[in-house]
Amino acid sequence: MSGADNPTSGADEAFRLRRATRADAPALIELIVALAQFEKIPAPTAAEQQRLIEHGFGDRPRFEAWLAFWADLPKPVGYAVLLETYSTFRASPTLYLEDLFVSPPYRRRGIGSALLRHCIHLAHERGCERMEWTCLDWNKKAQAVYERIGACHLSEWYLYRLTRDGMEKFLAGSRQNLP
Amino acid sequence: MSGADNPTSGADEAFRLRRATRADAPALIELIVALAQFEKIPAPTAAEQQRLIEHGFGDRPRFEAWLAFWADLPKPVGYAVLLETYSTFRASPTLYLEDLFVSPPYRRRGIGSALLRHCIHLAHERGCERMEWTCLDWNKKAQAVYERIGACHLSEWYLYRLTRDGMEKFLAGSRQNLP
Repeated sequence: MSGADNPTSGADEAFRLRRATRADAPALIELIVALAQFEKIPAPTAAEQQRLIEHGFGDRPRFEAWLAFWADLPKPVGYAVLLETYSTFRASPTLYLEDLFVSPPYRRRGIGSALLRHCIHLAHERGCERMEWTCLDWNKKAQAVYERIGACHLSEWYLYRLTRDGMEKFLAGSRQNLP
Repeated sequence: MSGADNPTSGADEAFRLRRATRADAPALIELIVALAQFEKIPAPTAAEQQRLIEHGFGDRPRFEAWLAFWADLPKPVGYAVLLETYSTFRASPTLYLEDLFVSPPYRRRGIGSALLRHCIHLAHERGCERMEWTCLDWNKKAQAVYERIGACHLSEWYLYRLTRDGMEKFLAGSRQNLP
């Protein structure tokens, strides 16, 4: 992943943003687990947490993480995980926002907005024609924010997923007869 | 991108699949333009087509393309474009299917199914916990295929997009006041 790694801070804000390094992995994982709990989705297991460190900070990073720190607190209180996808129709990378989260006690201080603004800045700086992300249907508060910044809900596109279990069933033959 | 580059062919089929190389770029672009027309979406312009070649076959490939050839025809009649995203919750790469298309005169011969099966095989081989893609709401035929292979429509997830124009408006300040 390319792009600026320099820290960002709000002019009069008590927080700052910076890109996560391997030393931040335990704190990042705590935040990922907190987001999974908020979204009522199974959090990564201990083995998955080990993989996350390798995938984020190993030889071939599969995502980049940005952290938000509040005042003098040593641990981050929010994070964003980004990666680049691609649009063949626009012939351009898309900045994909996989996660965006602020720990509940630190909300309503502008931290989430600053993280989102920073991601939009990175997308623009890297020449992406699009930035994309998903949001759960019940999270109306987040949807209001996304619409307010000018993003569109792509309701005409259905998102499909095949799980590893589904791949195995299909490859084993029980679902191989396609029309 | 890792994974097998070896050709695949159906046992008794008149077609074969192989990974696209730079020499295939003009034929790949013809197919991408045909898919855009099918989806009633603006096709890449001449400048965008040049970028596609660099992004697909340059120093840092942003996607991988697979081509389907019918009998002795020199030009491919179908293609798939893949890239890898990531799930922090599953701590695993996701194989993302950006495009899958068979030229209309060559449909109903098993070519699309073979391309899809090959992608599922690659996702499994590369250790992906998930394979994901999108489909237009009106394409009921494709949706029936996806449900038949065991994929789920993630209707609880809303897909959001901010275009480059939207990024610029937001960063210029007209939409910067978030809640």
